[in-house]
Formats: sequence, C-alpha cells, structure tokens
Amino acid sequence: MSGNTFGTLFAVTNFGESHGPAIGCVIDGCPPGMLLSEADIQGDLDRRRPGTSRHVTQRSEPDAVEILSGVYEGKTTGTPICLLIKNTDQRSKDYGNILDTFRPGHADYTYLHKYGLRDPRGGGRSSARLTAPMVAAGAVAKKWLFEKYGTTFRGCMAQIGEAVIPFESWEHVPNNPFFAPVADVSRLENYMDALRKAGDSCGARIRVVASSVPVGLGEPLFDKLDADIAFAMMGINAVKGVEIGAGFGAVTQRGTTHGDSLSPEGFLSNHAGGVLGGISTGQDLEVSMAIKPTSSIITPRQSIDIKGQPAEVVTKGRHDPCVGIRATPIAEAMLALVVMEHALRQRAQCGDVNVSTPDIMRRRG
Amino acid sequence: MSGNTFGTLFAVTNFGESHGPAIGCVIDGCPPGMLLSEADIQGDLDRRRPGTSRHVTQRSEPDAVEILSGVYEGKTTGTPICLLIKNTDQRSKDYGNILDTFRPGHADYTYLHKYGLRDPRGGGRSSARLTAPMVAAGAVAKKWLFEKYGTTFRGCMAQIGEAVIPFESWEHVPNNPFFAPVADVSRLENYMDALRKAGDSCGARIRVVASSVPVGLGEPLFDKLDADIAFAMMGINAVKGVEIGAGFGAVTQRGTTHGDSLSPEGFLSNHAGGVLGGISTGQDLEVSMAIKPTSSIITPRQSIDIKGQPAEVVTKGRHDPCVGIRATPIAEAMLALVVMEHALRQRAQCGDVNVSTPDIMRRRG
Amino acid sequence: MSGNTFGTLFAVTNFGESHGPAIGCVIDGCPPGMLLSEADIQGDLDRRRPGTSRHVTQRSEPDAVEILSGVYEGKTTGTPICLLIKNTDQRSKDYGNILDTFRPGHADYTYLHKYGLRDPRGGGRSSARLTAPMVAAGAVAKKWLFEKYGTTFRGCMAQIGEAVIPFESWEHVPNNPFFAPVADVSRLENYMDALRKAGDSCGARIRVVASSVPVGLGEPLFDKLDADIAFAMMGINAVKGVEIGAGFGAVTQRGTTHGDSLSPEGFLSNHAGGVLGGISTGQDLEVSMAIKPTSSIITPRQSIDIKGQPAEVVTKGRHDPCVGIRATPIAEAMLALVVMEHALRQRAQCGDVNVSTPDIMRRRG
Amino acid sequence: MSGNTFGTLFAVTNFGESHGPAIGCVIDGCPPGMLLSEADIQGDLDRRRPGTSRHVTQRSEPDAVEILSGVYEGKTTGTPICLLIKNTDQRSKDYGNILDTFRPGHADYTYLHKYGLRDPRGGGRSSARLTAPMVAAGAVAKKWLFEKYGTTFRGCMAQIGEAVIPFESWEHVPNNPFFAPVADVSRLENYMDALRKAGDSCGARIRVVASSVPVGLGEPLFDKLDADIAFAMMGINAVKGVEIGAGFGAVTQRGTTHGDSLSPEGFLSNHAGGVLGGISTGQDLEVSMAIKPTSSIITPRQSIDIKGQPAEVVTKGRHDPCVGIRATPIAEAMLALVVMEHALRQRAQCGDVNVSTPDIMRRRG
Repeated sequence: MSGNTFGTLFAVTNFGESHGPAIGCVIDGCPPGMLLSEADIQGDLDRRRPGTSRHVTQRSEPDAVEILSGVYEGKTTGTPICLLIKNTDQRSKDYGNILDTFRPGHADYTYLHKYGLRDPRGGGRSSARLTAPMVAAGAVAKKWLFEKYGTTFRGCMAQIGEAVIPFESWEHVPNNPFFAPVADVSRLENYMDALRKAGDSCGARIRVVASSVPVGLGEPLFDKLDADIAFAMMGINAVKGVEIGAGFGAVTQRGTTHGDSLSPEGFLSNHAGGVLGGISTGQDLEVSMAIKPTSSIITPRQSIDIKGQPAEVVTKGRHDPCVGIRATPIAEAMLALVVMEHALRQRAQCGDVNVSTPDIMRRRG
Repeated sequence: MSGNTFGTLFAVTNFGESHGPAIGCVIDGCPPGMLLSEADIQGDLDRRRPGTSRHVTQRSEPDAVEILSGVYEGKTTGTPICLLIKNTDQRSKDYGNILDTFRPGHADYTYLHKYGLRDPRGGGRSSARLTAPMVAAGAVAKKWLFEKYGTTFRGCMAQIGEAVIPFESWEHVPNNPFFAPVADVSRLENYMDALRKAGDSCGARIRVVASSVPVGLGEPLFDKLDADIAFAMMGINAVKGVEIGAGFGAVTQRGTTHGDSLSPEGFLSNHAGGVLGGISTGQDLEVSMAIKPTSSIITPRQSIDIKGQPAEVVTKGRHDPCVGIRATPIAEAMLALVVMEHALRQRAQCGDVNVSTPDIMRRRG
Repeated sequence: MSGNTFGTLFAVTNFGESHGPAIGCVIDGCPPGMLLSEADIQGDLDRRRPGTSRHVTQRSEPDAVEILSGVYEGKTTGTPICLLIKNTDQRSKDYGNILDTFRPGHADYTYLHKYGLRDPRGGGRSSARLTAPMVAAGAVAKKWLFEKYGTTFRGCMAQIGEAVIPFESWEHVPNNPFFAPVADVSRLENYMDALRKAGDSCGARIRVVASSVPVGLGEPLFDKLDADIAFAMMGINAVKGVEIGAGFGAVTQRGTTHGDSLSPEGFLSNHAGGVLGGISTGQDLEVSMAIKPTSSIITPRQSIDIKGQPAEVVTKGRHDPCVGIRATPIAEAMLALVVMEHALRQRAQCGDVNVSTPDIMRRRG
Repeated sequence: MSGNTFGTLFAVTNFGESHGPAIGCVIDGCPPGMLLSEADIQGDLDRRRPGTSRHVTQRSEPDAVEILSGVYEGKTTGTPICLLIKNTDQRSKDYGNILDTFRPGHADYTYLHKYGLRDPRGGGRSSARLTAPMVAAGAVAKKWLFEKYGTTFRGCMAQIGEAVIPFESWEHVPNNPFFAPVADVSRLENYMDALRKAGDSCGARIRVVASSVPVGLGEPLFDKLDADIAFAMMGINAVKGVEIGAGFGAVTQRGTTHGDSLSPEGFLSNHAGGVLGGISTGQDLEVSMAIKPTSSIITPRQSIDIKGQPAEVVTKGRHDPCVGIRATPIAEAMLALVVMEHALRQRAQCGDVNVSTPDIMRRRG
C-alpha cells in the first residue's frame, strides 16, 4: 500500500537501498510444487547487472541471489519466497555535493519533499539498483508460466537516442551489450562512446514481447491487462511513455486498418498488441516504452541547494549514460509479473470456463 | 480484485452494462464534511454524454446522476457514496450479427473467451458508456482537491487522425464539440464528416493536465504517481499509449536537455511532466494518450463467427466514429481519481512531514 | 479500504443508510455462468427482514432485491452484480433526542467523533439494516459453493439472555421466530415478552456451521480461514466474541483431549471446529458468537449531549429487543462469503495441487 | 494476498520457516523521520523468545534482529524496513515420524492437503516461531503510537488450564515467566511441572489492553476496529476464541447494564471494551483470547499416516507445553499493528475532522 508491493495474487514486496547491506524481495503467492533454485534466477540477474561493458556503470556487483525461504527440497512450498541480494560494492564517498543539492531530473527533490529526509547514498531507494529484485522475481514468474503455458518473454533495444535499431533477429540480442537485435553494433558503440565523451546521457526505446500468452487474461473495467502493463512499465525507473501494439501509431490509423481481422487460421495482424478490451487475445503481447536520459551526468547543471539557493550540480560517481541499455531484462521481468498475476486471477474467477475455440485460433496472428 | 474497483483509499467500484437498467459506482473513502449535490457532478457528465453533436453517437442519454447514499443534509458523511445513472435509451435490436461474430478490434472475442459468455447488448460491460460513472466519481475528487489544494484538471484534444491541433487557448475547449483548444474547428468538422461518409473511424491524441498538485504525491517503488496515471489512462477504452511529460520525445533528448533545471524561482522547464522518481514535483502533471479508431464501423470486415467459420462483419447501430472526441472529460476524471488517491495516501504515511521549502518552489515551473 | 468492501476475490461493496432511498451492494468477482435470479436471493432476505414476529422491530420492509447488473439471460457474466434494496418504511421522525445526545452503548458517539458529522436517521450507516445486502451477497456465495462443492450453511440460536437453548434438531429452526433448534419455544416467547415489558434488551449466542467445506481453504500466516471468520463475525453489529470449535472451552482442555484424533475413517472429533493451522480440514466449520444487548432501549439512561452536558437518553422508535434474534441468517451469509473468498483464492494459487487422500478422509469426523 | 501480509497502510510481510536460514518481515508504510534502532525492537523479542524458563521450549535462540533497510542515520526513511532474524538453533533431526504421519490437532494435515507438500522441519511455516517477526514489527508500531498519541500496550496471562489468575497488578507481569499479574506464581509453576510430567499440554487465556487510543479509529462497515482485532488475534497460532470488552459475558447482560453510561467526566464503565460501532471510543481496548493446548505432546495419539493407514504419533523434540505462556508479547504486538493501521487510515480519510469534544471525554472511563 505504501507502494512497495507489486501484484496481489503473485505479490512481490521489494526492500533495500542502493548502498544498504542488502536488497531483496519477498514473493507471496507462488504456486507450490515448482522446482526452483538460485540457478533458475541468476541468469536474468546476470543479464541486468552492472559492470559488464564499458557502456554501463562500472559498479561491480555479482548480484548473487540467495533463497532464504519458501523452497523445501528444491520445490516451492507455496509460502513466501524471500530472495536476498547483498550489496558488495557500495562507495558512498563518490557523491560530492548531491547531499545538499538537487540534481535536475532526479528524484532527489521529490524524495526529500515527500518524506522529509532521504538516503542519498547511491540514490538510496530511488536507485535503479532496486530493479534487481524484480528481475529475480520475474525469473520465478517466467519459469512457472513457461512450464504451465509455454509462455516466453523476450525484449530488445529498439532505439538509442537518435539511432533507430532495425529488427534483424532475436538471436543477436544476447550477443551485444545493448540487447540490440542486430548483428553489427559498431554504430551503437560509437554513439555511446561519443556520448560519454560529451559528458551527457541519452534516452532509449525498449520493446518487449510475450508469446504463448493464454487467451482471457485481464480484469476489466480497471485491472485490464494493458493497464497493468502500463502501470508496470511506467513504474520502471526513467520510463516516460508506454505503448501497446500500434501505440501512438494508432492515432493516425483508420478503423479499417487498425482492427485486426480474424480468419479460421487466426488473427491476420496484431495492431492490438495482444489485448482487446483489456483482455489477452492469445496473440503476442507487444509493448514498447520510452526511457529518458539519466539525470546523473558530469556536465554541470543549474539547480538549487536544499535551502533554495542557486547551486551548480555535477554528478560524479558511477552512472549509466543510457539507463535503457540495462532495461531490457527489467522490462521482461515486469511483463512476466503482470502476466503471472493475471494467470492466477483468471483461474480464481474463471477456472471453470471452457470455450471450445478452434485450436488454430491460439496461433500467433 | 476482479478489476472493477479503482483506487484503494478513494475506491470507486463501477457496475452496470450498456443496456442494463442502470450503471453507476460506489465511492468509498471520500473525506467527510464536503458539500456535495448532484449539481456538482452533472456538469462533467454533460460534457461526456452522447448525442450532443453530429460527430458522436446519436444515442440520447441525459445521464442524470442520483446520489443514493453517503450524503446527509448536503454533506458527505465519510460513508460510501453510491451514484446511479439510469439507462434510458437502450436499443438492443440494432446489433445485427454481432451476437455470433467477432468484430475486428473489439472486445467481443476476448470477453467470450474469458468468461464463457457475454452480454452483447451495446457492448455490455465493454462499452465506453461505463466511463460515465468514472466521470461522476472524478467530479467528486476534483471538488475535494480544488477545495483542499486548489488543484485543477483540464484536458483537450491534441490530434484527430492526421489532423494535429495546435494549442491556442484553454478557453476554446468548451466551445466546440471536439474539446479542441482552437477557435476555428471547421477543419476538424470537415475531417469528421468525410470520415463518417467513408464509413470508417479514426484515432486521436488527448492531452490532460493537472495544476496546483501538491508536491510529494506518489508511492515508489511501484505505486508511483506516473505509474498509476499510466494505469488509469491505459485502462480507458481504446487507449493504446500513454506519455508523461516529454514522453517518447525523451528518447532523443540528451540528459542536459531533459533534466529540468531548478532556480530559486522554481523549475525552469517541465520535461518531467510533473513527476520525478514517481513523486509529484508540484509542477503541472502533463499527460498525453493515444486513442485507437473505434472498431464498430459500417465498412464490412473479414472475421469469423463463434464457431470459427469465416464471416463478414458490419456494425450498424449508433457508434462514435472517433471515440477520442468524448474522451477528454474521461481522462480528466481518471487523472483526478489518481491524484485524489495519492493525496489521501500521502497524509496517511507522511502527514507529519513538513519540509520548509521556499514557497516560491511551489510555483509552476 | 475505507472498510466498506468485504473480501478481495469475491468482493462485496456495501452502500446505503437506514433511512436513505436505498441500500445495496456490488459483488465483484462472481464466477461467470451461474444461473442467478432475484428468487435465489430473496429467501434469505426474507429470513432476516424485520416485522415478522412481535419479538423483533416492527419496521415493515419487504426487502425486495433487484439485480441491476452482472446477469444476462439468467446467468452471471463475471462482471459486477449490483443488488439494490429500496427502503420503503423509513420514519425518521421517531428519533427524539438522539440527534444531540449519545445513546450508551451505541455508535452515535464514535461516528460523530470519527467523521465530524453523522446521519442519525435510524442509525444511519451503523444500523443493522445494512446487513441485508450482505445476506443477499451471501445467498449468491451459498449458491455457487453448493453447486460446486455441495457446501451448505446452517445457523441457529444457542442462547437468549440466560436461556440456554439445547440443540434438538436443525429442522426446528425455520419453524419459530428465534431460529431456535427446539420444537417448543414458549419459554423463549415468555422470556422475550417479559423483557419487552421491562423496557430492556438482552444478549444472545448464535451458532453457525458450514458442512462439506473443501479441505485446504485458508491462507496462513494471516489470512487464515479462522482469522477471516473471526473478522467477519466480529464485524456483525453487536458481536462481542467469536469462537471456533472448542473456543474458550479449549482453555481448560488438555492436548490429549483437544487434538482431534484421525482414523482411516476420518477425524474422530471436531474440537478444532474444522480448521487446523488456519486451513480447513474438510470437517464442519463450527462457529459461535456472542451478541450484546441492543443499546436502543426505552429505559432512561444516563448520558451526555453533544456539548458534553449531562442528559438522559430514552430511545423510542422501533428496535429489536434482542438483535440476536435476526442474526442467524446474517452469520450464515458472512460465513459463506468467507468460504467463497477462500475457495477462489485456493484455486488461484493451488489449482494444480492434487493430494491423493483416501476419499473417506473427506467424511465429516 | 496469499495471506502473508498483515495490514494495508502499515503492511508487514512475513517470511521464513522454523528451520530455514532466517525469518523476518518487511514493513511497508512506516511514517518517516522516527528514530529507530535494533535496540528499540530487541526488548519485545526477548520477552517472546524461547528457552527463558523451564516452562517453555528449550530451543535456544537469541532472536537477534537486524535492520536491513528503511533506516538512514538512525531514522526511518518511509521506505520498507526489512527486519531479519537468523535461525541459529535448528535441529531438524528431532522430528521422528512426524514426516509421514499427522499429529492430531496440528497443521500437518492441512498444510499437506493445501499445498501438496510441506516443510516438516520444526513445523515449517506453521511454527509459532513465525510470530517473532510480528513482535518485531509490533515494536515499531508501538514506538510510533506512543510518540504520537501516548498509546501503550500491555498484556498478561489470565488463566492457565483450570488455574484462573486474579489480576493484582501490571507490575508483576515482567517478574515471572508466565506474564502473570500476580506476585506469587508458585501455583502456576506447580501446575506446569505436573503437566510436563504427565506428558500433556494445556490451554490458556490471555488478556491484552491498549490505553490512550485515539477516538475514531476503525472503518465500518467491515474493517471495524474490533473486527480487525478479532482477525489479528484469531490468526495467532493456537487461538480459538476472541472477546472484546464483556465478550461472551454480554450474552447474559441486559442493555441497561451493558451500555456504558456517559458523564461529563467520561464513560462510567467499559463493557464495550473501547469500541462502539466498530470505532474506538478512546477508552482502553480490552481484548481476551483463548489459546488451545499445543498439539505436539509426547503422549502417544491415534492418527494416520500420509497413506491413510492407522499410525500412532508421538512428538519428541522441543515444544511448549502451554503455548499461551509466550503469547502475551505476541498479542500485544498484533494489537499494536491493528491500532497503527487504523491510526494511519484515520488521518488519510478524516485528517481534517476536528470535533470539539470536551477534553475530559478523552479520559479513560
């Protein structure tokens, strides 16, 4: 309720600060009987962790996850799963005058005004580091959904700054530090190198897709699947926009174009992005999001201090020049958490529903 | 939990179907002691109701609201406020073959697959008519927020199909059927007339703004103000994309541009759209959304019937060729409900916080 | 969240005041596809309604329920079910000096201090009349649970004032105005007549039982089945104590006695009352509750007025001298709502669990 | 939602198993700016921990609490507070045939049937050990409530088995291992020694009281203060009955007796137990609960094994012969959590209410 639990039936409660002793989460509601070990989770954490290329923050964190509860003899017991990640490379000394000034575009200002005090070490609670436990929780959701429904989650970088990235193939994504679906990322490397040299940061666009999603997920009027996806994505640090399917492109579409026709072989297009009326169609969930440039840059900025006096702010320390670069596994995880939640809700209310749709309709359109 | 309650502390539970006897909502959590009558609510309902111009559905509904509970001697008592709107112009006969076919782009398909049955009369529960109770609830929230903090909510049409609408002035908005902030809407009228003649529908972009929002609203890590706004907006019928502040424009911005500088006189820009780290800055909340073209059009479409056989679908009856036209008051209402929720949450947890910020910082940047 | 919604997956939001135009509730989360009509609900409402004997309030209310939404062609659609009961016999003039004094033992005092104002007409929101919508919602839950699991709910009066009522048979319960499980209620009639003559009121003890409850319902650590039952029962007007199984009798039991032995034929006793570790055993749920004497009596009482000055209070109007008399159907309904909620939760999280217990264990112990 | 979070605005999520590496909780919603250290919490943990007398389990646990997050420079930051308690004295070998049999009166049976598997080590999740994190969370709530409103929480043993314990003085409570409010506990010691010798266990009655509770707490219709107290207490391991104020004694009271008269000097009695209409009166909250005899006893019991075959069960290992003995600090903590929750809710909805009641009314009646 104070905003640190994501989900209701598959509820993930997040805790910790960037430079505290540990971060983690508690998952409540995981179905019992699923095989689960740290190894099932560590892979996604490794995809997100810092320090893996020169294009991201140089903080060195193994982000090794420990399962503290909820698993017995290798299986989930249905009781809360506490996942703990110790912080090992905190360096709070790096933070210069951010203790008493406000970085333009940063949560410094709002945290102080909301709570009356703030933990400034590494951004405290507002740090993107707190997405790590969500990636861990998402890995649990992904595993269950895959085993139950064959659902898979994939994401990639679609744009860095002005550099639009064409989609070549999913198979390229793991082979470069940008999660870019292209074979050759030299253009992106040059772009990032120039940006870093300029002491500036840039935005990005991320795309994330879920396939083999069961039809019927989503709870209108309000807890629609797309509404919950928008909630999840906009809640990721630095996200400023979210699209489902055609997204803002739908503004200039006609109804005759946008509405995805159906045939006995399935949907013939997917402008809807896998959701109609807030409920999954069984097609791929197609989500896109805009990520703003990080506010922690070394270029001096005009600001004020906590007394309201003019101040120049320079952020030293270790920061991502484009937070979008590590956002792909985060977006996948959040999407998985949304789908998981709705899969459980669906069988709660509609567990007896059995619509004899031709199987072929379940094909991706 | 089955998705028909919006909000937690200011919780609005929506009920009814397009062609049932009545629609309405129950507001739980309204602070006591506020003057409230039907007249305070009817104004916004009238802005949303159908049949007011040739550019929207010709269904004729007065949408007269009745307060059934929660108000005594003209004041809210703190107990649930039930608002009832009777349906008076249902014509279920108009619906042709939609009973046993699926309209491309419509919730027909997903409702049937989720619940195993559906009320097809006027779209049943999936009808945009169900936004009326939210507009009513939003009017209650707007009133309280204005009296408490001076907060105001305004919205306008920013684009219809390809027709981008420049912002001239808020004062034009009430003077045309499009909620367009321009003096001359002849271009939009011609556009809509041509569209209707073509038997097609189009998308739109809506902008909505809240001013004089208290600083400090929003509950990270998840129930961030912007995340809840995205949830609220994406949940409105036909919305496919949501932006806060710079939105997708942030992708190509640099950190030096995007991060809003601060001065002793306040913020110097508002790329953030009034939210940093998921918490309100005190600046205007700036929200934009994409609305898809309605799926109920008279042009024949390729589809299937409920047995999976090919079928051509034509939607007769009364429909909006651009559902965006009536979306402005809906978006305002949903934004008001989000701000209301967070205003109550904020005083629950942080009611004792008192940050002595220079008053001038509370100015709109 | 402001306390007027009961349940989460099967969520019942209650609205209305004793002397307002109507009372009612919205049920969100009812599984789709169940046959439902007003007739399925009216029976329980008739068991609860006032004016049916000289031992209860003479307010004359048909308590006729209308289904406003959520049912199409006789079946639940899975969307919110709004149930409306119009108030037809309000007589607000009867209330003498209760407008500006506090009845000892009544919610007058606390409502005013909580909300700053209160609707005094018939007790406003604090009236036991507001249990009617819960009885209606409970009837919906009972129907689904019976059709799905064969679960049944029964209750009876166990004690009125000093008069302990032996259990003879469930079949007597519908045949007397006290819900007493005895053939001859003349003793109770005399007791109540004398009490009324004395201008006083008395307490009661109610017993309620659910049979054929699925094993496995309840969500420890906190949302235990017995904890939720205690919550539901203590929340009924005038309840001051709740017991499960042996209840306070367990204080003087030994472990060798209290712990219900198991045999291949099932449990050999039911001191547990059908719950172990907060989870249903499959045995009968056995619940008992204490109901206080009503505070609205004609005998003058010492109190104060709203200015804090001494005042004598006499309550005229129409009141139950023993609110326990009409409490049985209310307690049954609340128990049904709790079981319903947990039945849905159980299949959400544990829908795949299949423990091959000998069938005979499912027998009542 | 899967039942491991207590509270909504002050939400405590509990995790861990009796013999896992650690147990703990995450508190979300603590107001910011409160001084908090481990020392503020350890005291109550020490009151609850095992091994402190011969009358309780001999498991030796320091129950040392660590604050992992949510506190910066000694003050709460308003972000989640993770409290961790490492398990140091697990001895899973002690558990004999409980792996494949069901102890009469124990959660073994229901956990297996609910989840399909269970962690049998020390009772796993069903162990009373999991109350330790709640005692820790309760200490945080107690501190805030005391600093804000002067609210205090006290509890004592009222009965062990047949031994009713007269109330002499609160000051005796900390001076004996039973939390008994009497100077001489030799009778209780003899009682327990005989019981242990007999290889049996017994029940208990606990009383818990909150003083200086603000008037106006509680959210009817359902989230009444007394309903939430009943929920909290019935959810404590082994509790079978809960009373508020007169409790079951109210059954035989008359309205003229039960209803607490008011005078300008305050209430003249407290049969209500501090709650009217589900809302606090400002008087002491008076709560009583029945605790069943523990099911883990060395006397052989008739039961079955997991294949449904007859089996004799003997529980070795370390167990409390009367779980009520250590229940007092648990009950206090749970009561504090309920009051805390409602204190925050009250200022959310009714933060502007200001009833000018004579101050004297706030006196304890």
